[in-house]
Amino acid sequence: MTNSLAEYRQLAKALAVDALALVPGPNFTRALGHSFMSHERPFVLIVHADLPPAAIVPNLELSSWDLVGFEGAVFDWRDQVGYSDAFAALAQHMPMQRLAVEGQVMRVFVHHALIQAMPKLEIIDAEAEISGLRMIKTEADIAALEAAISLSERALSRVLDSVQIGQTEKEIEGALIQALFAEGAEGLAFSPIVAAGPNSAMPHAHARDYRVQSGDALLFDFGGRKDGFAADITRTVFVGEVSDEGREVYNTVLAANLAGFEVTRAGVTAHAIDDVVTGVLEASPYGDRIRTKTGHGLGRDVHEAPYIMRGNHQILPAGTVYTNEPGLYEVGKFGVRIEDDVLITETGCRSLTQFPKDLMIVGR
Amino acid sequence: MTNSLAEYRQLAKALAVDALALVPGPNFTRALGHSFMSHERPFVLIVHADLPPAAIVPNLELSSWDLVGFEGAVFDWRDQVGYSDAFAALAQHMPMQRLAVEGQVMRVFVHHALIQAMPKLEIIDAEAEISGLRMIKTEADIAALEAAISLSERALSRVLDSVQIGQTEKEIEGALIQALFAEGAEGLAFSPIVAAGPNSAMPHAHARDYRVQSGDALLFDFGGRKDGFAADITRTVFVGEVSDEGREVYNTVLAANLAGFEVTRAGVTAHAIDDVVTGVLEASPYGDRIRTKTGHGLGRDVHEAPYIMRGNHQILPAGTVYTNEPGLYEVGKFGVRIEDDVLITETGCRSLTQFPKDLMIVGR
Repeated sequence: MTNSLAEYRQLAKALAVDALALVPGPNFTRALGHSFMSHERPFVLIVHADLPPAAIVPNLELSSWDLVGFEGAVFDWRDQVGYSDAFAALAQHMPMQRLAVEGQVMRVFVHHALIQAMPKLEIIDAEAEISGLRMIKTEADIAALEAAISLSERALSRVLDSVQIGQTEKEIEGALIQALFAEGAEGLAFSPIVAAGPNSAMPHAHARDYRVQSGDALLFDFGGRKDGFAADITRTVFVGEVSDEGREVYNTVLAANLAGFEVTRAGVTAHAIDDVVTGVLEASPYGDRIRTKTGHGLGRDVHEAPYIMRGNHQILPAGTVYTNEPGLYEVGKFGVRIEDDVLITETGCRSLTQFPKDLMIVGR
Repeated sequence: MTNSLAEYRQLAKALAVDALALVPGPNFTRALGHSFMSHERPFVLIVHADLPPAAIVPNLELSSWDLVGFEGAVFDWRDQVGYSDAFAALAQHMPMQRLAVEGQVMRVFVHHALIQAMPKLEIIDAEAEISGLRMIKTEADIAALEAAISLSERALSRVLDSVQIGQTEKEIEGALIQALFAEGAEGLAFSPIVAAGPNSAMPHAHARDYRVQSGDALLFDFGGRKDGFAADITRTVFVGEVSDEGREVYNTVLAANLAGFEVTRAGVTAHAIDDVVTGVLEASPYGDRIRTKTGHGLGRDVHEAPYIMRGNHQILPAGTVYTNEPGLYEVGKFGVRIEDDVLITETGCRSLTQFPKDLMIVGR
């Protein structure tokens, strides 16, 4: 049993469940040291509190699965036969009454397959606890995050140098993605947001055929992946020129972002960080433009625990990485967000994001 | 109510449920005409069989949601407050006893939130029926698929021209992704597979630091996205030279792929296609190298209904698009797969994939 599997076994004991079930995604990758796809095929790792682990594996994944060196029972199934026999065989092999699952990762068809095979099974959503094992980053995790962030910053530099008035958001997005892979990204953390003018006021905008104009805010929220870890960076620049209001809003958001760094050290609560950051925004003339919490944890997943928001009184230990991403959004007009990836240390914090935050004017 | 929402309402009636629940993903995009992200936030569209629709919307998505022009009740929720009140308000507003969901898309945390608000709710996995509405493609769908496929083929041409002996799989993968975006992709259909030598024998391999050598099979399985639709193409080439065995295996897979075209017309069953295609592989000396079914439907999702396999006696109508992707995989040695995207017509079929299938030697 790998060290990592032993950790999940300990968690099963602590949660007082018979076993944990992991499905392809960041916890699965971390537990096994290999990443797998799932699509329409159930693929489940069962880490029992007391017994050796077991797995349900799509037959066509067996050759990849062999690389894992898994020491437990494997129930494989073929597309032509279906998967209900494999779940029934698992139920026979390893009777369970309480099973903890990752509620944000496991889909309903797997939930139903488990219940069909074990009608009395109690399925508990232990997303917070299971993914929580990833919260404190190792040195290797931090090195991977730094690599992902560094290549993402180089890609952003390339793109900002090339932005032209009259380019569409989609064109700029295409240039950003090409730059990310040219700089060594192994994947995208998420579909990037490139949003100009009024579109920048939507926190989760999609790039469109809109052509950037002088005076527009131009927001980039994006990240590359490296060694299984995701960067998540936002910078907002202005095209050609910036209005007084644009400058004031920018400086307000920047002040909120900087206040977040001031208050961050091991032992702070997620609530306290959001309270300070959002407090700066609220104290400004733009308090009605607040739409989001301060941020979220970052690692193998681009959104993971801890969630940096008021009401979350979780104490954050050294080794936690979170996004400090205050923003102000005036619907129909423009939005500004500045997002850094922050490593919490014993004595304070360190920004893994190094990209400058001075107000920047781009475009030729 | 949009035409598309009306279609889901009809399905709710046909399934004898009170309502359908859709979550962000291809059905959600199709129903609303806009795409949304979900991440850790519940975001649910309820299409009732008799009443106006309703939705649970994360507060920070409201400005994007406004673009939908949604005519129904909206229950929004903020991160700081959580979502249980929104689900409770939905339950109050629209009592339900039977709810059909997309089992391959909805995750367990949303399932649990629904059950918490409506403890007696019966949740039915209607993935096949809900996603089945996407099976027959419209002319606009086919145009988008053709655009996605065409740009993907141009990207593959670029990369095949540039492959060098000694390049790593990861380097070739990076070049492929850059070429896809340079050719106009709006996203990746999935993380591409670039697999050489023994790695090509794993149906879902990951690119590694392995350097391609003369004599290697080199398999590309990839696709770009355009206008919400995904291409899915596989070509296997040989680097520098090809062994007699490589050539024989290649020709066997090609014969199976071609046999699939011969048998395809409106009214054929998924079973019949797989039976013919897999039958060619089984009749060859390489029958022990079969690892997968013939293919799957293709559209907004890269794996969707119908699944082209023995035992699936679903009749396929004109307008269905599926992947014809036979392969032979010798573990530890090499694999060959050839994948075309096929449109079923009344009188036969048409390959949307145009990329040549003659055995190709690449590399300098």
